[in-house]
Amino acid sequence: MIKVHGVPLSPFARKVYLGLRYKGLDFDMEMVPPGGGSDDFVKISPLRKIPALEHDGFTIPDSSVILRYLDQQFPDKPLYPADPQLQAKACWLEEYGDTKLIENLGPIFFQRFFRPRILNEEPDEDIVKQKIEQDLPPILGYVESVLPENGFAVGSHFTVADIALLSPLLNGRVGGYTPDAAQYPKVAGFFARALEMDFVKDQLAVEKEVFNL
Amino acid sequence: MIKVHGVPLSPFARKVYLGLRYKGLDFDMEMVPPGGGSDDFVKISPLRKIPALEHDGFTIPDSSVILRYLDQQFPDKPLYPADPQLQAKACWLEEYGDTKLIENLGPIFFQRFFRPRILNEEPDEDIVKQKIEQDLPPILGYVESVLPENGFAVGSHFTVADIALLSPLLNGRVGGYTPDAAQYPKVAGFFARALEMDFVKDQLAVEKEVFNL
Repeated sequence: MIKVHGVPLSPFARKVYLGLRYKGLDFDMEMVPPGGGSDDFVKISPLRKIPALEHDGFTIPDSSVILRYLDQQFPDKPLYPADPQLQAKACWLEEYGDTKLIENLGPIFFQRFFRPRILNEEPDEDIVKQKIEQDLPPILGYVESVLPENGFAVGSHFTVADIALLSPLLNGRVGGYTPDAAQYPKVAGFFARALEMDFVKDQLAVEKEVFNL
Repeated sequence: MIKVHGVPLSPFARKVYLGLRYKGLDFDMEMVPPGGGSDDFVKISPLRKIPALEHDGFTIPDSSVILRYLDQQFPDKPLYPADPQLQAKACWLEEYGDTKLIENLGPIFFQRFFRPRILNEEPDEDIVKQKIEQDLPPILGYVESVLPENGFAVGSHFTVADIALLSPLLNGRVGGYTPDAAQYPKVAGFFARALEMDFVKDQLAVEKEVFNL
């Protein structure tokens, strides 16, 4: 039995959902409200962060740790290249997605989706503008410089790098922002190809249903 | 040829030095000044952060990515348990050390070593007091709750978890702070055992020499 504690629009929880869906593994979703849920949750996730995984009684937090664990327990359709250099590149891009992309796409999602829809507040469009015009160009420019024109982030197979680049882009998209294909052709192409994958469509269908997008 | 771009007292760079020393691998140290060094360095480390690794022409940043890469290229004395659950626990503790321990032991090091010795400024002892009395107890309390009374962080072998818990403790120590054995017996025992290991002594000798400690 696999259970993921999280919320479908969390960029970190979505990494785990996408990994499980890519591998074709069934799982239950346990919804955790912002702030970290019940006092029992802290036993599973000491920092009260999502996602956290339960697998046959074993529990572990942190999206990166969870994806590595799942890949070892369910090695079909591996998320980590066997070649050490390719794997290091994939894990570095995962780290880049988990930090720089989320730090700069997350606020667009927060202003345009979370504030109006969850907090019943007005979005601050100045922050959105700052992110799109000032902060994101060097970040997306770096991603543009490392992505290939076709295929996946570090080669011919889908990896943890694709998951970690895709998830924050999906948060930007919920906030109405998609990287411009003229400015970032490789990023835009990567994103467009990802959106055509069936297991990504399955994830988006759940997000649409849960949050009435 | 293995070269580590970093500085010996950086908690993240030290993770890599310790991993290499544990495995008995020779390496060169390329010193990177605070702020990220030359414009060439950004090609190796896009965020200008240390450490970054060079290995026979291949370059990669990020201490966690580097340690995993080194373990795959040099599998003797593995840093990652083969058992997926133990490995997940080790990687989670690495993440905890890299975030919570560094966030709360790093400022003690910064105030008491970096400000007086590098910046020629007075330390702010209020910040040190806040860390020791308010912020560290729940953090060290969690580490205390997961460490065993003997051996290593997740079992009978030295792993990446030991490296990532040890490195920030060493920064606290440079700042004159060592966890109290009465309050945190398992943390203090872990730290004391680590300080007796030869490859740790080798690292401390280098720090002592480079920084005239």
